[in-house]
Amino acid sequence: MKIVIVGASGTVGRAVVAELEKQTQHELIRVGRHHGDLQVDLTDDASVDALFARTGNIDAIIATTGNVFFGPLSEMTAENFNQGLQDKLLGQVRLALKAQHVLNDGGSITLTSGIIADVPIAQGGNATAVNTALAGFVKAAACELPRGIRINLVSPTLLTEAEEAYAPFFPGFESVPAARVALAYRRSVEGVQSGQVFKVGY
Amino acid sequence: MKIVIVGASGTVGRAVVAELEKQTQHELIRVGRHHGDLQVDLTDDASVDALFARTGNIDAIIATTGNVFFGPLSEMTAENFNQGLQDKLLGQVRLALKAQHVLNDGGSITLTSGIIADVPIAQGGNATAVNTALAGFVKAAACELPRGIRINLVSPTLLTEAEEAYAPFFPGFESVPAARVALAYRRSVEGVQSGQVFKVGY
Repeated sequence: MKIVIVGASGTVGRAVVAELEKQTQHELIRVGRHHGDLQVDLTDDASVDALFARTGNIDAIIATTGNVFFGPLSEMTAENFNQGLQDKLLGQVRLALKAQHVLNDGGSITLTSGIIADVPIAQGGNATAVNTALAGFVKAAACELPRGIRINLVSPTLLTEAEEAYAPFFPGFESVPAARVALAYRRSVEGVQSGQVFKVGY
Repeated sequence: MKIVIVGASGTVGRAVVAELEKQTQHELIRVGRHHGDLQVDLTDDASVDALFARTGNIDAIIATTGNVFFGPLSEMTAENFNQGLQDKLLGQVRLALKAQHVLNDGGSITLTSGIIADVPIAQGGNATAVNTALAGFVKAAACELPRGIRINLVSPTLLTEAEEAYAPFFPGFESVPAARVALAYRRSVEGVQSGQVFKVGY
């Protein structure tokens, strides 16, 4: 399969690349904001168009990217909240909406959520909303995608590799190594399910 | 209680007003985009500030308003999708974020979702995402709101009053009269729960 991974240089992205590289039948195209084989800005329609003009038709698109706003609800503004809507939510939705037109029959779209969708944490109001919206989008899009194209969402708990930076925000949470999270992306790409959330580590 | 209802002239809003008017202990302030005692544009921070400058401190805020984008996924653009994010999602979130600062101790915020959060329909990808995001926001915000302030979400199925216009999009769905939906808003305002989705008619 010809697989495009957007966010390939991130912690999850690198693990996904490592997992999929073991499968010698795949051709991987690593994409990042600044790194990788190709670059893309998911907040910009023209940039996503340019990406797919370069890749041509593909069999799978994976997004392991996107930022949300973290901050106390008591100080949060609509402008703060909109940051996560425009970046992690609309960025991944834009990629999926564009990708549907370049995916081969039976292709797949795999997006990335996170445990905060299901388990609120302090300062995480935007993260919960963005991640639940992605679950809603995937559930609905799966019903409308044509030609056997599938769409799923991977939702990991705190990454073991991110514990040092983020553990204070996740008191009592178990972490999961990125290598285990990567398996869920492989399940989504090579499996048969659609409209699913693959929760990893919780 | 001093209760502000944004969207008071809509089908649900009118039913909520009718239900709450029966409770003679309440003072109701009807707000709309163009109608009502006061006007507000929920897409505009300054307009929401001006609304609360007029109302002063309140005991409950209810939103029964917001538009999403409907259209086939195969033709949907990120710009289309963003319409629902900016209107129904961010509009209600903006109202809630501003309202937390003018609500009295033990006050409440009640927002509006819809069955498409849980049950996808054709052309409803944006609606599902927006409505699930609202559920996520409410779940997370309930954990951070101070001073006993509560937040809930009412999610009705197809309204009986809207059947003529929308029934073709909801094949085989039962409808619910707005008067029944209105009870859920009263439960949210006068009850004790927080972080809940009150599903009505499904």
